[in-house]
Amino acid sequence: MKVSELGEFGLLELLGEIVGKSRNAGFASWQNLLIGIGDDAAVWRDDSPIHLATTDSLVEGTHFELNTIGWEELGWKAIAVNLSDIAAMGGTPRYALISLALPGSLETDSIYQLYQGMVQIADHFQVAIVGGNITSASKVVINISIWGSLESPFLLTRTAAAPGDQVAVTGYLGASAAALKMLKQKLNFSTETNQSLRKAHFKPMPRVNEGQILLQQGVKTAIDISDGLLADLAHVCRASKVSATINKDAVPVHPAVQASFESDYYYLALSGGEDYELLFTAPGHTVDQVKRAISCPVTVIGEITAGTPGEVSVIDSTGKSIPWQQIGWEHFKSQL
Amino acid sequence: MKVSELGEFGLLELLGEIVGKSRNAGFASWQNLLIGIGDDAAVWRDDSPIHLATTDSLVEGTHFELNTIGWEELGWKAIAVNLSDIAAMGGTPRYALISLALPGSLETDSIYQLYQGMVQIADHFQVAIVGGNITSASKVVINISIWGSLESPFLLTRTAAAPGDQVAVTGYLGASAAALKMLKQKLNFSTETNQSLRKAHFKPMPRVNEGQILLQQGVKTAIDISDGLLADLAHVCRASKVSATINKDAVPVHPAVQASFESDYYYLALSGGEDYELLFTAPGHTVDQVKRAISCPVTVIGEITAGTPGEVSVIDSTGKSIPWQQIGWEHFKSQL
Repeated sequence: MKVSELGEFGLLELLGEIVGKSRNAGFASWQNLLIGIGDDAAVWRDDSPIHLATTDSLVEGTHFELNTIGWEELGWKAIAVNLSDIAAMGGTPRYALISLALPGSLETDSIYQLYQGMVQIADHFQVAIVGGNITSASKVVINISIWGSLESPFLLTRTAAAPGDQVAVTGYLGASAAALKMLKQKLNFSTETNQSLRKAHFKPMPRVNEGQILLQQGVKTAIDISDGLLADLAHVCRASKVSATINKDAVPVHPAVQASFESDYYYLALSGGEDYELLFTAPGHTVDQVKRAISCPVTVIGEITAGTPGEVSVIDSTGKSIPWQQIGWEHFKSQL
Repeated sequence: MKVSELGEFGLLELLGEIVGKSRNAGFASWQNLLIGIGDDAAVWRDDSPIHLATTDSLVEGTHFELNTIGWEELGWKAIAVNLSDIAAMGGTPRYALISLALPGSLETDSIYQLYQGMVQIADHFQVAIVGGNITSASKVVINISIWGSLESPFLLTRTAAAPGDQVAVTGYLGASAAALKMLKQKLNFSTETNQSLRKAHFKPMPRVNEGQILLQQGVKTAIDISDGLLADLAHVCRASKVSATINKDAVPVHPAVQASFESDYYYLALSGGEDYELLFTAPGHTVDQVKRAISCPVTVIGEITAGTPGEVSVIDSTGKSIPWQQIGWEHFKSQL
């Protein structure tokens, strides 16, 4: 059945049912909810004094193509990219509002799957989907806003990087951009590699718990890697009015990317983007503490320096400077 | 200059400057803000125990056409429709996140004007614009999420209408739909009528203070009129499992609409939509109290009955039943 045949109320009812199953999970956000889907606004009780909110969109044709991403993956990813922003502040995500713009010619089942993907990841992080909005449009646009709270009076910001800080990242980089390249160029890899890359791109796992551990261990500066390692490090350097030098040979390239993209794995890991790992800076002893407290890999890849604000330099392990052209500076340009 | 020439950072900087002027106004939301535009998420301090959040989109081609609405009007309206949802719960709006999807070929000045319109109404209601997101798309999509708080433990919901309640509305209806008809059919009216209709459609004033007064006076049920008086009353009746009868001759049709649309002013007022007035139900003595406490017109137009849940009947002042066809039932159909 088409969305236009089911109509707005039918669709809202269907989505309400999917979300209703999540509500049965009964985690804290649901317990504190006073009014959910179906009124003018969502209403909840929360005594935390510090609140966080973020919003992000996925636009058909800009961020995804319907012939490569599955609807469930799309739902997962739309929530994941927002959770990643909350993670990069050290917050706890609690409530989500979903705004859908879509063509009436879509199959209802597609929207059902979309919401299944959203509920999967929302349940995983105990986030309650409490409202939103559906409207018609010629292309699919998914906008999500997530509200969260913060247990400590401290925050992970982009503005606290200081000369002498080490620059470190969680996990491995490059797999999401590698997946995009694989799909666009129709590259053939083993099923295992294919699935591993695909998962990195379409179902990224935001580092929510890891962000909270960074905060607990005294880290003050973090950002999530969405635009790409170099671009996001440049955001931090600009905001903190510092510069940075990173050693490209220290960057933890995803093993499947290193194995399958011999000629450009550095490009994919340094400039590819959409990894949704956390990039953070802190004094060496704080990074050591983080490594002991956290269960994912943490790799030191460079240091913050007192050079030109916003400047990021790349060297190799012999100390030789690497020109931007080799690692994809052109990717930094805006997509606007 | 085109948006694509200015680039994402240039644009963010420009918008940051416009919002920065609002920040100088220094109202409570700004004072409590810890992190605004430029980090991964917005962060603020707030000790209210009850929180509200709502989101709504305006999509080019579905909700507006760029050849009829001005950019400043578009910015105003995008915020207004969200504030109206907070108003319909009796809440106080506090923070806004703006998500823009737009073609790179747009003039930067258009986006500047868009934000001017947003800041105008945000300042009027002391709402701080604290973050958001810009991405490229083939059509303009503006998604806004607004977070608010509630001072009382009570709420205006859609679920509390009870048989015997009077049905009442604030202000006058029909002007917004009349403006749309005037523009689409290129109708010529006096400058005064033209401006009055245009303002109702493009720069609606959400009833934020009025929603709070309803709550203070003991009203429990309200909705904002966005889909149209009959459609929104049907939403309330469905949610409250009651029915309603309204007297079409009692409906406060906007004077300019009554004067200029002789043949279909009832249709415009009952089914036109986008009035952003408040529709509420309450016992007669509560409605009387509201009339004394509020400065805008409040008109009783019918009553809640114990009939088929969700059913809305229309009569005239002689008690004669009016068939749906005469007042536009077909407009109720979903736009999806």
